[in-house]
Amino acid sequence: MDFSSKLLENAVNEVSRLPGIGKRTALRLVLHLLKQPTDHTKFLSEALLQVRNDVKTCEKCHNISDTILCAICQNSKRNPEIVCVVEDIRDVMAIESTAQFKGLYHVLGGKISPIEGIGPQNLQIDSLIHKVESGEIKELIFALSSTMEGDTTNFYIYKQIEKFNITTSTIARGISVGDELEYADEVTLGRSIVNRIPFSQSLKA
Amino acid sequence: MDFSSKLLENAVNEVSRLPGIGKRTALRLVLHLLKQPTDHTKFLSEALLQVRNDVKTCEKCHNISDTILCAICQNSKRNPEIVCVVEDIRDVMAIESTAQFKGLYHVLGGKISPIEGIGPQNLQIDSLIHKVESGEIKELIFALSSTMEGDTTNFYIYKQIEKFNITTSTIARGISVGDELEYADEVTLGRSIVNRIPFSQSLKA
Repeated sequence: MDFSSKLLENAVNEVSRLPGIGKRTALRLVLHLLKQPTDHTKFLSEALLQVRNDVKTCEKCHNISDTILCAICQNSKRNPEIVCVVEDIRDVMAIESTAQFKGLYHVLGGKISPIEGIGPQNLQIDSLIHKVESGEIKELIFALSSTMEGDTTNFYIYKQIEKFNITTSTIARGISVGDELEYADEVTLGRSIVNRIPFSQSLKA
Repeated sequence: MDFSSKLLENAVNEVSRLPGIGKRTALRLVLHLLKQPTDHTKFLSEALLQVRNDVKTCEKCHNISDTILCAICQNSKRNPEIVCVVEDIRDVMAIESTAQFKGLYHVLGGKISPIEGIGPQNLQIDSLIHKVESGEIKELIFALSSTMEGDTTNFYIYKQIEKFNITTSTIARGISVGDELEYADEVTLGRSIVNRIPFSQSLKA
């Protein structure tokens, strides 16, 4: 691309470093900002700088937070004895939006993935084991994605906490609510048959 | 979306104001920045603020520029008697990348579009007429997109400069180089037959 302005080129280069944004999209975004009032760009820049510099990680669950302890961990109405283990903060947001979970979370910050060079020491696994050791947790719910890496991470954690007397569970896998059986993949359909639940229980959800 | 941090929510809201970026994509981009070194966010913010505050519009052709006159208008090797009329600066970049045009540009900043409330007074049309009046232009090449709005804009300008004795032309429409005829739309194919050129001329390009 031939840029008529170094400032424009510089801005496009910075924007196109973001994942999934190529040079053309970056150019479109920057030209859009140039057509908007200056305030738009000012607010955008300030918001990005502020979140990068000032955002904290909750000391207890490692969720993103503005305070040392996040709002969920501070909430006395939630049950600290049930902890849901998730990969990242987007999973916390997804589960929170269901309003079905009243326990606390533990954000690992990723999954064990030898290919990407992510080992247990790169994740918040030790702090989870410490929580279990301390006896404050009664049930641990594994809610990692159902992939090779997710299963490996679940198993690694499970092996370390097996000796402590706590309940462990994993979220149910099955056919999505509203989905047609004929379009479901066979692995999911197979699991949903193996892990069938009493009909009376399904009426409660 | 339930955000665990006001700073995060604010940043996601600002990013999702950009065209074509929804809340989920904005969240993905902001979380990406949080995982990168602080410098990345700092450079991005600074680049956006700088381009918004300091970028100029070339006094002559209205292209984006760091100086009062853009590099193309300043270039004494280019022919100022041939001017190519384009919609926006992306079109200048596209034509420059072909290295086939050695004249100057005139960036209108849009097309006449009554539906979007864009009239001739919102575009850089008067300054183009003034240039033609002053006698400095010998040929005007219309390179607007081939849409109702583009054709209207071409015609509006043409009517105003008809009385001055200059050559006007429009870029050739036809089958893209390398395209199969059977997949071309009939309007384009029809035009390419009506506006056929001598075979000997096609050998030169």
